[in-house]
Order: sequence, then structure tokens, then C-alpha cells
Amino acid sequence: MGDPIAAQELSSLSLNDAVSPTHVPNAEFSDRVPIRSIISRPDGGSGLAGQKARIGGWVKTGRKADKDAFAFLELNDGTSAGNLQVIVEASVYELGELVATGTCVVVDGLLKIPPSGTRQRVELRAEKVIHVGPVDPAKYPLPKTKLTLEFLRDFVHLRSRTNTISAVARIRNALAFATHTFFNKHGFLYVHTPIITTSDCEGAGEMFQVTSLFSEAEKLEKELIQNPPPTEADVEAAKLLVKEKGDIVSQLKAAKASKQEIGAAVVELKKAKDNVSKVEESVYTFGPTFRAENSHTSRHLAEFWMVEPEIAFADLKDDMNCAEAYVKFLCQWLLDNCLEDMKFMADKFDKSCIDRLKMVASTPFVRVSYTEAVEILVEAVNGGKKFENEVKWGIDLASEHERYLTEVKFQKPVIVYNYPKDIKAFYMRLNDDLKTVAAMDVLVPKVGELIGGSQREERLDVIQQRLRDIGLPPEPYEWYLDLRRFGTVKHAGFGLGFERMILFATGLENIRDVIPFPRYPGRADL
Amino acid sequence: MGDPIAAQELSSLSLNDAVSPTHVPNAEFSDRVPIRSIISRPDGGSGLAGQKARIGGWVKTGRKADKDAFAFLELNDGTSAGNLQVIVEASVYELGELVATGTCVVVDGLLKIPPSGTRQRVELRAEKVIHVGPVDPAKYPLPKTKLTLEFLRDFVHLRSRTNTISAVARIRNALAFATHTFFNKHGFLYVHTPIITTSDCEGAGEMFQVTSLFSEAEKLEKELIQNPPPTEADVEAAKLLVKEKGDIVSQLKAAKASKQEIGAAVVELKKAKDNVSKVEESVYTFGPTFRAENSHTSRHLAEFWMVEPEIAFADLKDDMNCAEAYVKFLCQWLLDNCLEDMKFMADKFDKSCIDRLKMVASTPFVRVSYTEAVEILVEAVNGGKKFENEVKWGIDLASEHERYLTEVKFQKPVIVYNYPKDIKAFYMRLNDDLKTVAAMDVLVPKVGELIGGSQREERLDVIQQRLRDIGLPPEPYEWYLDLRRFGTVKHAGFGLGFERMILFATGLENIRDVIPFPRYPGRADL
Repeated sequence: MGDPIAAQELSSLSLNDAVSPTHVPNAEFSDRVPIRSIISRPDGGSGLAGQKARIGGWVKTGRKADKDAFAFLELNDGTSAGNLQVIVEASVYELGELVATGTCVVVDGLLKIPPSGTRQRVELRAEKVIHVGPVDPAKYPLPKTKLTLEFLRDFVHLRSRTNTISAVARIRNALAFATHTFFNKHGFLYVHTPIITTSDCEGAGEMFQVTSLFSEAEKLEKELIQNPPPTEADVEAAKLLVKEKGDIVSQLKAAKASKQEIGAAVVELKKAKDNVSKVEESVYTFGPTFRAENSHTSRHLAEFWMVEPEIAFADLKDDMNCAEAYVKFLCQWLLDNCLEDMKFMADKFDKSCIDRLKMVASTPFVRVSYTEAVEILVEAVNGGKKFENEVKWGIDLASEHERYLTEVKFQKPVIVYNYPKDIKAFYMRLNDDLKTVAAMDVLVPKVGELIGGSQREERLDVIQQRLRDIGLPPEPYEWYLDLRRFGTVKHAGFGLGFERMILFATGLENIRDVIPFPRYPGRADL
Repeated sequence: MGDPIAAQELSSLSLNDAVSPTHVPNAEFSDRVPIRSIISRPDGGSGLAGQKARIGGWVKTGRKADKDAFAFLELNDGTSAGNLQVIVEASVYELGELVATGTCVVVDGLLKIPPSGTRQRVELRAEKVIHVGPVDPAKYPLPKTKLTLEFLRDFVHLRSRTNTISAVARIRNALAFATHTFFNKHGFLYVHTPIITTSDCEGAGEMFQVTSLFSEAEKLEKELIQNPPPTEADVEAAKLLVKEKGDIVSQLKAAKASKQEIGAAVVELKKAKDNVSKVEESVYTFGPTFRAENSHTSRHLAEFWMVEPEIAFADLKDDMNCAEAYVKFLCQWLLDNCLEDMKFMADKFDKSCIDRLKMVASTPFVRVSYTEAVEILVEAVNGGKKFENEVKWGIDLASEHERYLTEVKFQKPVIVYNYPKDIKAFYMRLNDDLKTVAAMDVLVPKVGELIGGSQREERLDVIQQRLRDIGLPPEPYEWYLDLRRFGTVKHAGFGLGFERMILFATGLENIRDVIPFPRYPGRADL
């Protein structure tokens, strides 16, 4: 029989075998062996039969058998989609304390080949129960019955014990590490841009503000471009609101009223990355972003994560090349490192999710200009296709348009570029036609827009004229303009909505299920 | 002469040679070749002589020579601590427009071996100037003269063009990627915990709050443990303050007054990681943290970054093993991947910084209990050592004590463990002596405390008693307690102050110089 397997030994065994580089055993910082390092071996763990191991996990299903002579426990420790079956004899422990779903059990035992006819390739016969974290089944909020994702949203502190949320967590982690790997591989520096900011315009001195304003700002900026600047009365009313109520929501309302400040906020967001990128080589940020609007859709959160590279010495073509390479890299990474979890998602939620990853990883993205895209949509309408939103040159493409292009017309990823300047932000580079800017969106099947980006306006005189056209005072932008004033050069960047990428990969429908602690109006309580 | 080098070719050349995996060329997303991919080759670039390349960068120093027949430009593009010398003849471009410090220049040219006697191994003779981003020397805020770090803090949007801040950015990036690599390698999942939170206690309903409260909370919690809970009058006064002023600073003041809420905030911070770790295997977070106190020291920021792993099935020993392995990994990573930048820091700021990394990477950390540490300090006092703060069992060790232990007594990293429970947070596991908790701090030369961590209290009855002892109501903690109620198990974690790690590595003195956009009282303007 020999000694119990040292955690270290088992770990190195499996490192040389099948375990993915994004989630290998951490056995060296604990005395138990991760279940993944046993069952994810190419032999399903059967090669370890005859060895001893300490295992810990939570009971998925437990039942007593053979007139209560022993219990079968399906244990899961979060390292894998699969469970390890543990058999405990009544002589070893009081079985009634072990079988409730959710119970935490740590056991020392012997790995053995199960009787033929069972699905498992290996199981553990318990020799000693080291620890039990009990559960009262009458009180446990997550019984063994099938639970809807919606129901689970009321238990974010416990839902990661379920197969689905646990698989999503591993996929999310893999995509995050793939992101850092991709950008480091291509020479980008990870830059930590700040969350806290102040707006001097508001005259609030030492007061902290929160970037909840920023994303909202980007959206409102479109209004700003077409509408006249706020009157003094607007600004005064806004300031009063802040003074009276002062919380973030009021500040947001105030900022909405006072559109000039919104403009400044947008610039500040951009310049933070922007200026760095121009001096410190290409950079990327990866962090939380805020949107304080009162939105209750399945696609919006108050706090979500974005990946935003900014490429030095780059134009729109470089930007599109980078975006395409990055998305392909993410898809291939999941195929290489998360296939077990992807198979689970394909089985339970979206049969096509693995094929979709393969298609995107291997297919060149179609590139069409905005003008061509509108022509295609008009053609579709003429052919009898119904859209809710009217199609004509100058509109911002709606989700239905984007999905028609990528899902129906081309059936592959599509990059639309050169959008009308009036529907895009002022810092996007004006094209020579003076009507469009060097912006681009990456559209993919299932979620539509996955990435938005642009080449930035690097010409001082052009960006100053754009500010004047919009009616913005130059003062708050001076340090943004400094970047054009002192050694300007072409550069470009984009943003990828990280949760949207996870929805695309997993086939899940609701953004609240792909972030550990979703924040949306009325739900930020823990 | 041949064709100009394709960026792609040069990139793969250097990938096979000397370029570090954390910062390789991104040439494929731009038409210029990063300077690093030329001068960081083992041959210093001389092997590329005779090839053509497009280079972009900012002029560090430029001068006209030989009766204005040509100009020497030292170009830096942020990819490397080193510059590439570019020679432009007067026939190629108007030299006067190129030589000002800060000018951005993109040129096509021929790489050639410089005349003997120069330091460079390769230089570029310009054949065509592709782009010039000019600078008016009279207006440029960063002239060629030596600038102090303090002066540069007024120009955070431009300071990354300097050698020092640029080197720090590369070191920071390397440490971030090393962090993700370490934890992924050891099976931890990266979990995105939220910034937005609400506190129901405050009765503020839909209002967003900001986690500025949290770090402050951790500090204030110590007061809380020893002081009685606030009176109703305190709470009322606090609420009034929020109603009247409402901004974050006021909310903080209010929270200070209402210490019960602080306690809740602390718990919420912890539980976010905590509950996940128990179900989804070991996890880590890496993100911004907030401290809203009015502190003007060289060691504190209002917004800083922390790395916080939480290890499932782990006790204090596992926690210390993980912390030691992580710090060693970071040090070795810098030696392996950032030696050029580390040499720059050693040359300019701290002669011992490279030796310090080597020592920490290779020396087992000393481990002493708090009680032993106090005995050592008392012995030192008896031997004539003067401390500003009195030494006796029960005190929280001051920075001077910590640095004495690691710099004078042991001259290597030290882990102090088992602190008195009265100076530590209530969620730390109570030891069997009922006087100490399973907490630990990692102390290193130069900065003192680098990491603080603990095994968490997993026993429901013990943590409930701790809450009662402190005088906190159980209601706000119910979902934290759920984690002990349903399948509890031992676990442990720690936090590393990321900027402190950079100070430790670089030898810089002020935390404001190691984060791109420092936020501190009165300075959050961009």
C-alpha cells in the first residue's frame, strides 16, 4: 500500500500530463490534492489506483446504500467540472452527517478502480474522515433539485458551488489570463488607470468623484455632439442638486444636466490611456468600468470589466488587425485550455458554442465600410427583410442590424469601419472625406458588437476645430491637447466588453450570470 | 541593400534571441520596428547592420553637427531603457524641426555599425522622414535638464517619457504579469470583486457607495474592537452629515462616526473573496483599493493596488508558504525579465536593489511568533536600542520595529505570526491559547511590512462569539456567516500592497512615483 501520496508528488504527476496551464493543482499550499489533478489525467485517474490521497470537497449528491452499511458521496472541490466519488463505510464515520448536499468533507483514502459498469475511472475509498463542515438540509438554500440561473442570482455568495457558475468562473479566469498573455506577448504594458477622479469644473475642490460618470458620459457624448451646450441655468441647477443630495446618483444627474462636464469626463477617461500609450510604448488596461444608468436589461450592468489596448504608431488597419488577432487568440485559448468546461456549456446551454469558437478562431474576419454595410442592409430591406429601426446612411447601427450582418449575411465575424463622424466621439480621427471618422466595430454571431475602437485624432488643429464645432471650451482639455502639442503621432485603440466575450463563448443569455457579483439598479447589496 | 526589414521578420528574430517574454515587440500591429527589438539583441543590434527598418520614437537629445550638415537624434520609444541613435542629413529633412527634446520622429533608414569609439553597437542612417510631431522648446514642460521626481509629479501626463518613470512602468507591468502567472500556475482563479457596494445599514436604498470606505474601515476596525459601539446619537449625527454633504469624504466621516457600519464594510470586503474561495477552489483578486484618509506621507495613496489570494483547505502554515513562494517568484521574475531596467534603478537610485532581489529570491524566510518578536525587541531595548514606540506584548508592531527585525536582527525576510487577538480583525482564526489569532505579516528590508494575512475563523460558534464580544449586531453579517453555516472548512489568505512591492524592488522612496496616476488628498485632477 505504501505511504499516502504527497500532495507535491501527485501535483507534479498531473502537471506532466493533462492539466491545463490555466488551472493546475495548487496542492503545495494545502495538504489536500485537488480533484482535477486526479480525474483530469488522460487515464481519468485509473493509473493512480492503489495510491492514497487526501481529498476535500463539497457533497453534490450523497446517499446511503446497502442497508446503511456505507455512503456514496459525489465530491466537487471547484477545480473541475467533474466530481470524485467517495465511498465511506459506516464503521469509519456517522454516515448521516455526510450525505446532505453542500456538506464539506475532507477524507484520507485509497484510490481504486470502481466496479465495471460505472462511469468513473477511479473512486476513493475513505479510510479516515478528517473534517466535516455540516449542512442542515432544511435550511440550505441550494437543494439538489435543478435550480434556475435566475433563482441563483439571489444567492451570489453560494451560487459558485453550482456546476454552471463554477464552469463560468473557470472560463472567465481563463479569458483573463489569456488577455494578459496576449498583450504581454505583443509588447503591451499593462497600465493601471485610476478609478477616482475629480472634475475641477464642478468647483468641488477636495471631493472625490467616481467614474460611474464615465461610461454614462460616453453614451451622452453623442447627444452633446449634436445639441447645444448647457445654459448657465442648467449648470446652476446641476450644482444645486449635488449640494442638496450629493450622492453618486445625484452627481450623475447633475452631470447629465451639465453636459460640458460630461465632455471633460470623456476626455479624461481617454487621455489617461492615451498619453501613456504615446510615450511608454503600447499599453492596455483591464479593469472595472461603471455605467450608472437605470438599465434592467440582460445585457447591462452598473459595473463591468473592459479590456482596452492602445497601440502606439498605429492606424485603423493596425487596430483592426490587433482586434482580430486578440479575439482569435481568446477563442483558441478556450479550446486549448477549457474544453471540459466548454463541453459542459455546450451540453447544458448552447450546442453551437464550441463550433462558434472554432469558426472565429480560424476564419478571417470580413471587413466592410459603414457605407457598404448600410448598402447591404438597404438591399436586405428591399428584399423583404423587416427591421424595427429604419436603415439609412447616418444612423448608428442597431443590434438587429449588427446581428443581421454577422449572423445572416456573412455568417462570420465582421468588422465595420469608417462611421459617420456625427455618431462617434470627437477624439476619433477625421477621415479625408470630412464626413466619416476612422472608427471600427467588431461584430460577432450571438452577441453582435464585441469590440469598438478607432484611430485617434492626433492633429492638434483638427481636434481643436472639432471641440469648437461641438461648442466645448478648450480649458478642461488642455492637458489632453498637450499630447498633440508635444510630439504627436498616430495611435489607435479599442475596448472589448469582457462579460460580452464570456456570453459569446458560453452561450449564456444574461450578463448577470457571468460576473461573480453583478451590480445593477437595486442590486449591489453584497 | 535589399528590401526594408519586414516588421514581422525583425520581431521573430528578436523573439528567438534576448527579448524578455514580458515585453516583446508588437511590430505586427504597427509598421515601425520597436527599438528594443534591435538594441536588446545579444549583439546589441550589430548583426542587423545593412538592413533597412522603420523606427519611431521621441527625441531624448538632438543636436546638429558638422556645420549643420547632419543631426544626431537619440530616439527612445518606451520599449527599452536604451535609445537608438539616428543620423539625419540636411538633404533629407529640415534639421531644425527634428532636434528639440520631445519631438516625435518616424524615419525609414539603414542600420549600420557606428564609427569605432562610440558606445552604440548599431545606429540608423535616415533615408526618409515619414512623420514629425514637433515641439516648441519654449513651451515644452520637460526640458533636457535633470528633472526631480517631485517636479515630474506635476506632469503625470508627460512624465512617462522620462527614463525613470518609463523603467518603473515596465517593472510594474512585469510584476503584474508575474502575479497572474504565479497564481494561475498554482491553480488559483482570478476573481473580479466589485468596486460598487451599498450598505443597507445606512438606509440609503438605491444609492451607490464607493469602497473608499473599506481600507479605511480595516484601519478603524482596530479602534472598533477595543472601543464601545457608537451611540444612537453618533449614528444620527453621521446620517445627518451624509444627508447634508453627501460626497464620499462626508460619507467617510459619517462611517467613522458610525463604527458599526465600518465593521460591516470590513466583513463585506472579506466575504466577497472568502465565500468564493470556499466553493470555487482557491482564488485571488488584483485590483484597486481605496483609502480616503487625509494622509500626505510618501507611503500612502487614496487609490492603490492590492493582490489578495485566498487559499481553500489551507491553514496559517500554508498561507505563509504561499506568501513566501509568491514574493520569491516576483523577485526572480524581475531578475530574469527586467534586468536592464533594474540596472538603471541600481545605477540611479539604489545600488543594492539587485542584490536585494537576489537575496530574497534565494533565502528562506525567517519565521518567528509575535511573542518571540517582542522578546527580541525587548532584548534590543535592554541592549541600548532606542525605539520611538514602547515595546511590550500587546502592541501593534510599528514600522521601526518591523525594520529592526528584518534589516538589523535577521537581515533577511521575516514572517511574524500569531498576533494578539485584540490588535487584529475579528475574522482571523482564534488560536487555542485564546489570546492570539492565526495572523501573519511578511517583513522585508527597505519597506518593512509587505504582506499581511491570516487563517480565517471557520467555526460558526467562535466567530459569532467574537461578534458578540465586539458588540456588533449579527444581522449585517448573516451572509458571511452562511459560509460557516453551510459546509465550512479551513481557509487562509493574505494581501500584498502592489506599490509597496515596486518600492521594494526599485529602491524608490515615494509611492507617488510608482503608480501612473497617483491619487492623494488634493491631487486627483486627471
